[in-house]
Amino acid sequence: MRVLILGGDGYLGWPTAMHFAARGHEAFVVDNYLRRWIARATSSEPLMDNPNLEERVAIFGSLSNHRIGCAIGDCADYRFLERVVREFRPEAIVHYAEQPSAPYSMRGYEEARLTLNNNLNVTFNAIWAVLEHAPECHIIKLGTMGEYGTPDIDIEEGWIEIEHKGRKDTFLFPRQAGSLYHTTKVLDTDLLWFYVRTFGLRVTDLMQGPVYGLSSDECDIDERLLPNFHYDDIFGTVVNRFLVQAVAGVPLTVYGKGGQTRGYLNLRDTLQCIELAATKPPERGELRILNQFTERFSVNELAERVQRVGEQLGLDVEIRSIDNPRKEREEHYYNPVHHGLRELGLKPHLMTDEVLAGMLRHVLRCRGSIDTKKILPRVRWA
Amino acid sequence: MRVLILGGDGYLGWPTAMHFAARGHEAFVVDNYLRRWIARATSSEPLMDNPNLEERVAIFGSLSNHRIGCAIGDCADYRFLERVVREFRPEAIVHYAEQPSAPYSMRGYEEARLTLNNNLNVTFNAIWAVLEHAPECHIIKLGTMGEYGTPDIDIEEGWIEIEHKGRKDTFLFPRQAGSLYHTTKVLDTDLLWFYVRTFGLRVTDLMQGPVYGLSSDECDIDERLLPNFHYDDIFGTVVNRFLVQAVAGVPLTVYGKGGQTRGYLNLRDTLQCIELAATKPPERGELRILNQFTERFSVNELAERVQRVGEQLGLDVEIRSIDNPRKEREEHYYNPVHHGLRELGLKPHLMTDEVLAGMLRHVLRCRGSIDTKKILPRVRWA
Repeated sequence: MRVLILGGDGYLGWPTAMHFAARGHEAFVVDNYLRRWIARATSSEPLMDNPNLEERVAIFGSLSNHRIGCAIGDCADYRFLERVVREFRPEAIVHYAEQPSAPYSMRGYEEARLTLNNNLNVTFNAIWAVLEHAPECHIIKLGTMGEYGTPDIDIEEGWIEIEHKGRKDTFLFPRQAGSLYHTTKVLDTDLLWFYVRTFGLRVTDLMQGPVYGLSSDECDIDERLLPNFHYDDIFGTVVNRFLVQAVAGVPLTVYGKGGQTRGYLNLRDTLQCIELAATKPPERGELRILNQFTERFSVNELAERVQRVGEQLGLDVEIRSIDNPRKEREEHYYNPVHHGLRELGLKPHLMTDEVLAGMLRHVLRCRGSIDTKKILPRVRWA
Repeated sequence: MRVLILGGDGYLGWPTAMHFAARGHEAFVVDNYLRRWIARATSSEPLMDNPNLEERVAIFGSLSNHRIGCAIGDCADYRFLERVVREFRPEAIVHYAEQPSAPYSMRGYEEARLTLNNNLNVTFNAIWAVLEHAPECHIIKLGTMGEYGTPDIDIEEGWIEIEHKGRKDTFLFPRQAGSLYHTTKVLDTDLLWFYVRTFGLRVTDLMQGPVYGLSSDECDIDERLLPNFHYDDIFGTVVNRFLVQAVAGVPLTVYGKGGQTRGYLNLRDTLQCIELAATKPPERGELRILNQFTERFSVNELAERVQRVGEQLGLDVEIRSIDNPRKEREEHYYNPVHHGLRELGLKPHLMTDEVLAGMLRHVLRCRGSIDTKKILPRVRWA
């Protein structure tokens, strides 16, 4: 299968490319280094340096004998994306090419406008490149569980039947997100659904929870093949921040009450999910939505887990609540369904103490590079 | 009250500006002539020429003694819009500045991308200009009833309480539109709702049905103050097309079965609705959604009305069904609520035979300018 990965330099993009290539598929990555540029502009560089994408491709090729195609360019530029699609003729496009930071999208006008235009135009261009040059191609879009927000009803898998005044119909599950970044993914879903039902596209929209982990069969081959690891307030997710804080000997910073509950998953499970989606595509004219996570934790539970495992490794780990820089519910109902990927065959890798200890050991090896100034919130929208 | 009208050169924008100015408000119009440019590019010029916006302002000023401020520029350019907002300090912004044609948005990649980027970026810039320079200002956004599509349940006024598995919560009423243009208005609503609940904007989103009519207290002063009148397949709405077909002696073209039902309103009622929304603003942090139409007709009913009134005026009017160029339901349930504007004080002007006869007489005076090549569908998406 020919798989085109948009945003192939990213935390998920690069492991996804290696994963497909190692399983005998033809993989092709594109990226314009937008995340690297934003990381530099906001002093949010990752803990370890990552080679440029073309170097990663060369290193992986020399170590594994699997060739990955690569082009550096902007997917929001249609002439670029169109040429790649016409020449590579993908059977699946995995679309990760979005500005992925909620705090960055809330920093000011310029950052918000960049997020809105980049994210929507890449989705729009992916749709059109498929319509014009590869109508059978399956678009696998990375959405986010954050699209749903934290409603007071159970969250279904993308769709809901509404009974109202004695009649009923089925609709997209209602969405209301907590940042502009998350809102752009709501708009992406609206846009995809319009083109799916109008022109018979074939789309899977994955509502993914926060991902943690640095390990996959291919990432483990060589340090230079690791995904990027951000622990800053802009790109770092809560698990990474806690791990780095534990190692640096500064308190784990819980935003507000810490009752914010989300569904998490291991990087290895993201790779499984993308592969399952690609090898079992939906019909044309179907927007398949899957809730992509394996287990739920509150922020307080995560902090306590990291504390416990950190102390087992001899670290002195304190937990401290700080003012929440985000506008979000700190205590809320949260009961999202997530059957679809299990039914496709997902075998979860859970967040065991061993998994956390493995990540902590990794961070410990790099402790000299930690810059604690990057960790505390620098963007507020509460 | 200081009222800034974005898209002040449009079918609604220009009458709105005169309406506010004539009632003692300070009105300021901005426009970049995007619609005029698209009309020329697609051979969809209106039936009568309209003077440029600055000339209209001058003519209205000399005939009525009411001054309207005016700037020609692109609201998708933040530097332009920001300067206007900073200097004029509006208390209300009426946002009409969108590419308004469904067929144009479905014509191809370039047209779709222009529609997506223009419409979203103007909405985004209006939000930010208010956040940064006029936080108390009320944004009155022109949405469309088309955002809801034609669901099998009753359409509520913007919001719906969903009861699900024994729990309940209130959400935006589900939206799924029939063209990319209508979809951009769905995205606008998502974007406005995000910024309203996050930063306490004050917004009214008007879900308007198709508008007809050329007459208002101010439009009637002088021929040169009339709004534009499009009868082509790109910008012409169904009522205008039927009136021109009746006068030109060609069959009224019903798309498909003609059971497509929508809520319509008279231009005079749009002006009332906008004024009611402006003078009775919502609280900060409220997204008020109002369904803006006064009566419902199917396409077949409209055709029969135009036929009857045309024949009273001695015209020979035939009705003919043609292949539907659009992807839409031609027979469907349709029961939208529309109490809100009545409660604010709206006194409807209905589509009487006299109103249709008045419009037909107007078109008869311009019959020499009719170009029947413009009327039949030139864009298909079914």
